[in-house]
Amino acid sequence: MPQFMNNREDLVNEALDGVLANSEGKLARLDGYPHIRVVYRADRDKSKVALVSGGGAGHEPAHVGFVGEGMLTAAVAGDVFASPSVDAVLAGIMAVTGPAGCLLIVKNYTGDRLNFGLAAERARAFGIKIEMVIVDDDIALPDLPQARGVAGTLFVHKIAGALAAQGSALETVAEAAREVINAVVSIGMSLDTCTVPGSPKEDRIKPGMAELGLGIHGEAGVEQVAFSNAKEAIDRVVERLSVHTGSGPHVALVNNLGATTPLEMSVLARELTQSRLGDRVQWMVGPAPMMTSLDMHGFSISLLPVTKFNKAALASPVGPTAWPGFHPVGSVAIAPLPDGLSPIRPTPSINEEHASFLTRCCDILIGLESELNILDAKSGDGDTGSTLAAAARALKGSLDRLPLADLTQLYRAIGLELSQTMGGSSGVLLAIFFAAAGDASASGNDMIGALKAGLDRVREIGGANPGDRTMIDALLPALDDLPSGLALAAKAARKGADSTANITRARAGRASYISADQLLGHNDPGAEAIAQLFEQLVSERKPTSGNRNSG
Amino acid sequence: MPQFMNNREDLVNEALDGVLANSEGKLARLDGYPHIRVVYRADRDKSKVALVSGGGAGHEPAHVGFVGEGMLTAAVAGDVFASPSVDAVLAGIMAVTGPAGCLLIVKNYTGDRLNFGLAAERARAFGIKIEMVIVDDDIALPDLPQARGVAGTLFVHKIAGALAAQGSALETVAEAAREVINAVVSIGMSLDTCTVPGSPKEDRIKPGMAELGLGIHGEAGVEQVAFSNAKEAIDRVVERLSVHTGSGPHVALVNNLGATTPLEMSVLARELTQSRLGDRVQWMVGPAPMMTSLDMHGFSISLLPVTKFNKAALASPVGPTAWPGFHPVGSVAIAPLPDGLSPIRPTPSINEEHASFLTRCCDILIGLESELNILDAKSGDGDTGSTLAAAARALKGSLDRLPLADLTQLYRAIGLELSQTMGGSSGVLLAIFFAAAGDASASGNDMIGALKAGLDRVREIGGANPGDRTMIDALLPALDDLPSGLALAAKAARKGADSTANITRARAGRASYISADQLLGHNDPGAEAIAQLFEQLVSERKPTSGNRNSG
Repeated sequence: MPQFMNNREDLVNEALDGVLANSEGKLARLDGYPHIRVVYRADRDKSKVALVSGGGAGHEPAHVGFVGEGMLTAAVAGDVFASPSVDAVLAGIMAVTGPAGCLLIVKNYTGDRLNFGLAAERARAFGIKIEMVIVDDDIALPDLPQARGVAGTLFVHKIAGALAAQGSALETVAEAAREVINAVVSIGMSLDTCTVPGSPKEDRIKPGMAELGLGIHGEAGVEQVAFSNAKEAIDRVVERLSVHTGSGPHVALVNNLGATTPLEMSVLARELTQSRLGDRVQWMVGPAPMMTSLDMHGFSISLLPVTKFNKAALASPVGPTAWPGFHPVGSVAIAPLPDGLSPIRPTPSINEEHASFLTRCCDILIGLESELNILDAKSGDGDTGSTLAAAARALKGSLDRLPLADLTQLYRAIGLELSQTMGGSSGVLLAIFFAAAGDASASGNDMIGALKAGLDRVREIGGANPGDRTMIDALLPALDDLPSGLALAAKAARKGADSTANITRARAGRASYISADQLLGHNDPGAEAIAQLFEQLVSERKPTSGNRNSG
Repeated sequence: MPQFMNNREDLVNEALDGVLANSEGKLARLDGYPHIRVVYRADRDKSKVALVSGGGAGHEPAHVGFVGEGMLTAAVAGDVFASPSVDAVLAGIMAVTGPAGCLLIVKNYTGDRLNFGLAAERARAFGIKIEMVIVDDDIALPDLPQARGVAGTLFVHKIAGALAAQGSALETVAEAAREVINAVVSIGMSLDTCTVPGSPKEDRIKPGMAELGLGIHGEAGVEQVAFSNAKEAIDRVVERLSVHTGSGPHVALVNNLGATTPLEMSVLARELTQSRLGDRVQWMVGPAPMMTSLDMHGFSISLLPVTKFNKAALASPVGPTAWPGFHPVGSVAIAPLPDGLSPIRPTPSINEEHASFLTRCCDILIGLESELNILDAKSGDGDTGSTLAAAARALKGSLDRLPLADLTQLYRAIGLELSQTMGGSSGVLLAIFFAAAGDASASGNDMIGALKAGLDRVREIGGANPGDRTMIDALLPALDDLPSGLALAAKAARKGADSTANITRARAGRASYISADQLLGHNDPGAEAIAQLFEQLVSERKPTSGNRNSG
């Protein structure tokens, strides 16, 4: 699985430098590449407690994305899914820690624990005041006392960060961090594994299954469960979380593990609010990617009780834009639709000649259904004939509702009918055509003038011109020649339609995405429809009272 | 490809409601589900020009995520990759537009153009003051006058939004929007197609290839190009953009098309600043997902010249958190490593007995390499033997640097050597062990007391206890019995090591993720190493002057 990187060994360094170059000078790093990767606040205030966290890369925006006012003072990054070295952590501590001391926030993985632990020992030997907390919020492995540290770590960063920003003492900040760690629980679910840069992707989740209780390093989940939909996914997760959840108000951190789309994350967030924990989830952080596992198609939910002691610290504004904010979960505000959306229907009236003409046009188009579909299949999705025939059938069925005696109103009414019965672009284009023809008719244009005005509007909004391989190539010359009679108009339409077979570069509509070879030698189906309509109107020339079959 | 949704037809509605419930009351929607999906600012000010945009869903955070102070007034969402209907757009216009009028911002796709276009006609018929602009920033299809609208649309939202927020007139806002549209160019590249909900994923990009010039609806790119790395990917994109890029300063909008990891996006952003357009890219928006194509593994770059006229509008703060800000591209601030990172090396000294004993221990561990690797392969990654042997070889090679005559200094020095030569957790654990033993020795403990103090520290930081299937299961009983002689200590170590074969639930280290079946009957390799070390020390009992091979 290829990725947008250069060398595997430079990936994390180059990514960090990308972040730094875009930090507006708020972040700096130590000169320790490739082994020491420490990013810290350029404006750190050593009179306040420093917060240092980190761990393997691959969890972005964690942790570098959370360095800033009100959260971390420094982040120490290892390679992808690998702990940073003792020297790297020690360098990070020494770079940002002053007399107020330092809190190390460590996720509970052996490598992190040991490297941060030894770094803390060495820092103490230099006389640095330091405390270390280990986050173990994952409830996926109930029998393992060393639960993993996952996205709940963000709550520790936020709350400890708020206290440190206020100038609290190291003991106070560390105690608050430990309280968060005792109270926060997390669990994740995924539909696919992640792609570790430079490695082939593992394919261990069978279709119809999801992994429940996974970590953030691509390791297998504790179990595979059947997956059917978002509601059941949230129900599974909520079932596990409920065991650890008290009755009071909570905040849920809804974390995107990487490649889950915002659509899916929003659906999951909604399901959480409607789950049996819904009444307790009174605040939310996210949904957003916060503690990812590269491109994993999954999510995690972390729950923390909200108390009068931690609420202000959760809600305080911070510098890092990766923190999506702490907001109350509300109801969906729904306003009524504006008045007047439905256009006023004209009063029906009778005119035998107009009714007969419309019916003939409709019957011609209905008869062309199959032929036009076959033609359209060569340059589109093969439905031009059916779309036109369906609209024609619907129009025939609406004759008794139409203001047949008033041409201006009739144009507008036909446009309205077509826009409501005909799907897709064609319906809208014809609606625009007849609406504009109606306007022109109202302004005193004759029939041909009105139809030409309609075509002008279609060209403007649709963006198509003669030569673009559309129905315009037949309709425009036909309308130009119509003053000389229907027969000449039909000839002009035929000539125009046939010219489209030589237009191999469509400039509008779906055919514009089709290769020249596929288009050459086939008339555009819309132009062909116009040509045949005119031709059959000429050849049929039936009496105006004939052929009526609606009324 | 499964996704976190419920029914395909409810996906967009449920996702929008998820967004609304988390909007802190800033957003509301019209009561038009399922066909009318209009999300708008609850605090809209009808005395200012309304900005209405939208289009198919699947591009989140666009467009709903950009509704808010300083950007859009309303977004009208269709279904995934499908234009909203005329009625939906009209409802959106009517819901938010007052006397100042409305600017419709439409991406150049036939469906959007027609539906928004007809809605604008209908709105005008109601006397609403309205202008419509069509964004066509994609430069992928050079021969098509109707270029697609892609991520450059965000610049239109931002600049027109800033002017509208200032109270500018509709004509001014529309003119500014048209200037952006004339000036902005975009192109995208992807390594994989997107997964359309409910449809099988297309597999059209061959290994080693990337698609260049793709749209945001999963349609194929204009061409497939060879893909090797991030630098060449950016070079390709920059080559196309350069044709349309003047010499002045520009802002680059670096857009994640969906599933690209933040690591990759940061690398791409860095490459852009180092490309031949690098000196012109003086500001950046992102990298961030702004105009996505579901879960597409790709990116797009949009370039806009920055002028004295648009700079303030680009930089002004906005409400929507999906807008990642407009920031100058800077250099990477690099600070020197803190002093004192390297521990002071002790003065070497000579002691034949200590040198001989250390050498014997090292030789024993070197001799166990293959046996321990085989054992470790049953419960881990098969490298315990090699890790210990490599450390032993390195330690033997360092004998002439060690303070052999001073046991306190010797412990600390061994810890330091091991932490610098031995990879992974084992190196750190042994470093902590010997560092703590040195401290204890300095405090007056004898050898056994010092080693026990070292073990206590390892247990504290490593979090492992007897019975957790680690080397502690052999080392702790051995140290307990060592006062009674080396032979009894070896027996205790053996008993402890053998007991680990019955521990099927490892509680620490890598083996904690291995199933019980795989562990049963095999000694933990770390514990086995301790047992064999003690046993061979008993059986060898060679003279202290023998076996030296360094010095």
